[in-house]
Amino acid sequence: MMTLHLTERWEITSRSKESTWALIHSVSDAFSGWLLMLLIGLLAGSLAGLIDISAHWMTDLKEGVCLAGFWFNHEHCCWKSNITFTDRDKCPEWKSWSQLMIGHGEGAFAYILNYFMYVIWALLFSLLAVLLVKGFAPYACGSGIPEIKTILSGFIIRGYLGKWTLIIKTITLVLAVSSGLSLGKEGPLVHVACCCGNILCHLFTKYRKNEAKRREVLSAAAAAGVSVAFGAPIGGVLFSLEEVSYYFPLKTLWRSFFAALVAAFTLRSINPFGNSRLVLFYVEFHMPWHLLELIPFILLGIFGGLWGAFFIRSNIAWCRRRKTTKLGKYPVLEVFVVTAITAILAFPNEYTRMSTSELISELFNDCGILDSSKLCEYVNDFNSTKGDDLPDRAAGQGVYTAMWQLALALIMKVFITIFTFGMKVPSGLFIPSMAVGAIAGRLLGVGMEQLAFYHHDWVIFSGWCSQGADCITPGLYAMVGAAACLGGVTRMTVSLVVIMFELTGGLEYIVPLMAAAMTSKWVADAIGREGIYDAHIRLNGYPFLEAKEEFSHKTLAMDVMRPRRNDPPLTVITQDSMTVEDVEAIINETTYSGYPVVVSRESQRLVGFVLRRDLIISIENARKKQDGIVSTSIIYFTDHSPPLPPSSPSMLKLRSILDLSPFTVTDQTPMEIVVDIFRKLGLRQCLVTHNGKLLGIITKKDVLKHIAQLANQDPDSILFN
Amino acid sequence: MMTLHLTERWEITSRSKESTWALIHSVSDAFSGWLLMLLIGLLAGSLAGLIDISAHWMTDLKEGVCLAGFWFNHEHCCWKSNITFTDRDKCPEWKSWSQLMIGHGEGAFAYILNYFMYVIWALLFSLLAVLLVKGFAPYACGSGIPEIKTILSGFIIRGYLGKWTLIIKTITLVLAVSSGLSLGKEGPLVHVACCCGNILCHLFTKYRKNEAKRREVLSAAAAAGVSVAFGAPIGGVLFSLEEVSYYFPLKTLWRSFFAALVAAFTLRSINPFGNSRLVLFYVEFHMPWHLLELIPFILLGIFGGLWGAFFIRSNIAWCRRRKTTKLGKYPVLEVFVVTAITAILAFPNEYTRMSTSELISELFNDCGILDSSKLCEYVNDFNSTKGDDLPDRAAGQGVYTAMWQLALALIMKVFITIFTFGMKVPSGLFIPSMAVGAIAGRLLGVGMEQLAFYHHDWVIFSGWCSQGADCITPGLYAMVGAAACLGGVTRMTVSLVVIMFELTGGLEYIVPLMAAAMTSKWVADAIGREGIYDAHIRLNGYPFLEAKEEFSHKTLAMDVMRPRRNDPPLTVITQDSMTVEDVEAIINETTYSGYPVVVSRESQRLVGFVLRRDLIISIENARKKQDGIVSTSIIYFTDHSPPLPPSSPSMLKLRSILDLSPFTVTDQTPMEIVVDIFRKLGLRQCLVTHNGKLLGIITKKDVLKHIAQLANQDPDSILFN
Repeated sequence: MMTLHLTERWEITSRSKESTWALIHSVSDAFSGWLLMLLIGLLAGSLAGLIDISAHWMTDLKEGVCLAGFWFNHEHCCWKSNITFTDRDKCPEWKSWSQLMIGHGEGAFAYILNYFMYVIWALLFSLLAVLLVKGFAPYACGSGIPEIKTILSGFIIRGYLGKWTLIIKTITLVLAVSSGLSLGKEGPLVHVACCCGNILCHLFTKYRKNEAKRREVLSAAAAAGVSVAFGAPIGGVLFSLEEVSYYFPLKTLWRSFFAALVAAFTLRSINPFGNSRLVLFYVEFHMPWHLLELIPFILLGIFGGLWGAFFIRSNIAWCRRRKTTKLGKYPVLEVFVVTAITAILAFPNEYTRMSTSELISELFNDCGILDSSKLCEYVNDFNSTKGDDLPDRAAGQGVYTAMWQLALALIMKVFITIFTFGMKVPSGLFIPSMAVGAIAGRLLGVGMEQLAFYHHDWVIFSGWCSQGADCITPGLYAMVGAAACLGGVTRMTVSLVVIMFELTGGLEYIVPLMAAAMTSKWVADAIGREGIYDAHIRLNGYPFLEAKEEFSHKTLAMDVMRPRRNDPPLTVITQDSMTVEDVEAIINETTYSGYPVVVSRESQRLVGFVLRRDLIISIENARKKQDGIVSTSIIYFTDHSPPLPPSSPSMLKLRSILDLSPFTVTDQTPMEIVVDIFRKLGLRQCLVTHNGKLLGIITKKDVLKHIAQLANQDPDSILFN
Repeated sequence: MMTLHLTERWEITSRSKESTWALIHSVSDAFSGWLLMLLIGLLAGSLAGLIDISAHWMTDLKEGVCLAGFWFNHEHCCWKSNITFTDRDKCPEWKSWSQLMIGHGEGAFAYILNYFMYVIWALLFSLLAVLLVKGFAPYACGSGIPEIKTILSGFIIRGYLGKWTLIIKTITLVLAVSSGLSLGKEGPLVHVACCCGNILCHLFTKYRKNEAKRREVLSAAAAAGVSVAFGAPIGGVLFSLEEVSYYFPLKTLWRSFFAALVAAFTLRSINPFGNSRLVLFYVEFHMPWHLLELIPFILLGIFGGLWGAFFIRSNIAWCRRRKTTKLGKYPVLEVFVVTAITAILAFPNEYTRMSTSELISELFNDCGILDSSKLCEYVNDFNSTKGDDLPDRAAGQGVYTAMWQLALALIMKVFITIFTFGMKVPSGLFIPSMAVGAIAGRLLGVGMEQLAFYHHDWVIFSGWCSQGADCITPGLYAMVGAAACLGGVTRMTVSLVVIMFELTGGLEYIVPLMAAAMTSKWVADAIGREGIYDAHIRLNGYPFLEAKEEFSHKTLAMDVMRPRRNDPPLTVITQDSMTVEDVEAIINETTYSGYPVVVSRESQRLVGFVLRRDLIISIENARKKQDGIVSTSIIYFTDHSPPLPPSSPSMLKLRSILDLSPFTVTDQTPMEIVVDIFRKLGLRQCLVTHNGKLLGIITKKDVLKHIAQLANQDPDSILFN
């Protein structure tokens, strides 16, 4: 009696505990999504800040060191300085290597010494990067976006988003960027953010166990990655939507936006650029553009498209060579050579010596009256200046020198980037692409400006570009060029325009950006259909079913399914007549990852689908733990099993491992619909029936091979896990 | 021989013609999409410009007329004036009604006369609007967004996007806006743009015949509609993506953006606001915000959420009353009464007399030194002014008066909008919602500003809001409030923030906007799950399968399919044993829109699905045109028909009308997956099988009813065509 009473009380207490637990659980469940986004944003933002600060410091380390503390970068070092000095950049605390070693920075010997140190540091950084990648996390190389696209489409690459990849990619990204190679940190930042997302998922049961939910989190993390790369949260979300994500459920749009914003503001509070700006390249233009300027903008678009197509072709050809020849066996040597060439070519030219993001920043900049950079050395005519408005002016000596140097920088960047992207170091190509476009744009912009200044009486300039007017903004041309080139390479459209729009915040400039992005996409698409990420996906043979391309062939499911016309019939398992031995024979003879279960071989009526893995485990367990299971035991997939004669061995019931709702289509279903189903429902296989009888099976691999075949590509290049 | 030769030549010519034609066709096919987008953008932009200009003129007509030409609106009239005058608004050419009738505008009598004329014009406009809607195009009423959402989900409402709806909606929208009712033009503009899209689709074969392609065009048109409503192309695309579209294929994202941009720039070239600005409310703030200001911003979010939930509940209750009681029978009287009340209450208060968009514009505005509006009547202390930067100042008499008037305007708008939205005139609620939020925000903003001015020594203000600093921008508060209220009503998230962001172009203000929008959505969601559009969809019983809500119940397909457990078996047609008579009997006895075809009644193995409509037409045609088809003729759905004995009547072969790839699921499929399939593939019905045998059918209506049942709603409220 007493015992009963106690049990009862215990039960009541436990029940009330349970309900409290259920309440906490449901609340935590509702908020876990938001909490996860918050954590991803915080972590991605912090890592991005860390990367920015370290890369900034190490980039400056190539040129010199701060005496006030070696951990200060150049700018920071000069801020800290108490001594007054004339040129903002040249504070006494900052010593170039020649100043440190031989006591002065002038003369040929000092120059050569600095040159030498620059190359040595660059080689040191890049070699360290490639060795770390090679030794600890081979997945940390490249941009990671093609792989993330593939993962989001349902493919599993084990360890690709693990903690080792995260740690090594973060460290080597800093090294690679600091080494001065022609690469950017944007793509790898997306990978880093996705690693954060994947690792943080493990904290929450809801996300740990559900593959689909985890992919939603990864989409949001990708948005956070782009958000910190550019300080463009809206652009980040759209990039994730347009470029990265395979299936983007709208309900995660808001959460992605939240993650992107948290990441952007975490980065801002870390303030790596020391200007409390959110965006990487802050620009402020004062003048509107004129309709006629659309012509040069479209020209920039054409240039961007041509460059994009040229880059993709050459890069893919080079990467294929790396994959297929001996070249691929010496990644360290490759990195060494490319870094050496880059550093040797880069140092003499001011515009390649500075970091690429600084270069872009300077190219985007609209010259103010106080700007001291060479690009702003115009012949000033202060009589015509009204207030802040600077009229178009004649270019001074500095501008002409800058033009030459920029042209050389352009040629160098165009070629060196082809060999850089795809090496065994983390490398993004947003920044190099933008640099190429920005240089081309600035060159064209300055050209237009001088044309308008010297020939303002021409018909095309009359009305909007009279003498003393500020009508051409070369910085805007640089920006349009950058958008065009980035568009040509990645084939981004809306997200590209939005990212660039977020940099300036001026709706006025959307039309030039859009005109350039559109032209660039059209031109590039006319030469080669694929963007760089899709091209790399295909190069690596990932099983990625492109969601944007329309399937417009007239083939039917029966043309694609296996078995083909003259093949042996489909391997099936019957629901109540096969023995353990029979099934084991099927498992040993074939390598399929699953088998359809039918009512009987004669009727071929489909009951369900059973996975090879589940079958093996179940039979093994049964043989070990269940009494009377021998090779002649019959396996039952039915709900109720018939009474057996006492002499026969006991039966094995396996209904629990049977998938009772496999997807089926009829053999007459057009492949257009089948492809659509595979895409939208993320299937891995689909059974084919005719008049209710099982006929065959179509796997994702079959679909991909079929598409490749129809596009006259090699169907055997497609990998599968 | 000769003949043959001729035929041959003709064939060759025809073939070469064909290939030219094919080339033209393929090029035109590739560009028809872009051309269509261009046309939609141009048409939507032009119509929006027309609506803006007319509405502007007619709104001013309520107050007076221009002597220089009655077709000039107030602003335009005063521009044209050659005579110099002091107050920009009071040019001699513009005569108020009292000036025109009794020769002067001063005194009580003139005031009453103007008051009277204001009310009369308002009534005239709104009555004309409701009569036009009632007489010519009943679909032209309301905002149209709930219906467009439903149409995009696959439901067909004939004539909803036709040319009559377009014409009448355009005209009545101008009338309704001009009448001064508490409504906006944004929702209806989306409807107008969709009508344009639908009508223009008829020009292109590709879009005329393909329902799915047409829906893509409609999504893009919706984006163009929002784009012209706010001058926010990116926001428009995101609105279409987030709120309107059911399934948004990414490949149309870029085209939508193009359409939205063309529309926005067409509108800008028409330049209806006379300021060559793209956006409706252009704002430029100079000061950053402080972290502590997030507290009032979140308060505004809470207000917005509460208002949104309150508005939705009251409006739905009122609309339900209109649907179910006699009220619905007198739409003209209803419009008359609401307009009369609105006009009578609006005239005495300056802030309700002006058009709502003007009001919002003024509320968003940051007071400059030269602003003459009452809201900017501060006590100036020119000693502390430095350059353009205005410090926080003490409020003058004007500000205090404005505060009172705004408070009254807020109360009036809150209540009158509930009764206005849903009347039989075109009515959007973006503008009224934003007005409510902007007023509340401005009130709070001015309050904060005065608090900071008088108590800048308080701890919370120390550090960032010292004396003479410009730390609080009331206009920003108005904007945040507007976003919060709009968010509360529509539950838009990303698109809302982006639209508001496009208005200011300052990335700095995204966080306040987002904090407010998020709080507002959470608060509103806690009170009632649905946004106003979903609530109206449910009120009207449209068969809309919400794509954002997760289906998380554990039911199976067998629980939902028909026939239910004790019903008679499913009506099927056999493939080769039923006579014309038998089939006609089935058609007459049942009302189903289609029938499964099986191998035989015994096997119940599914062959295909045949539509009722196709069956009726085929049998009718065969009876008329085909010899020997009588009631006892057997209908064959098989590929090959057996040889018949000569005595039997000739058979009817109907394989061509058979859908050989109907979607099937097994009876054990979880409803979660079934709902997902219906959503993603846009199905109307799906057959249910068990072990290869046909068991039943699930229609979209069944799915909707099931969802309604699980949510404890009345399943019979769902309409179906």
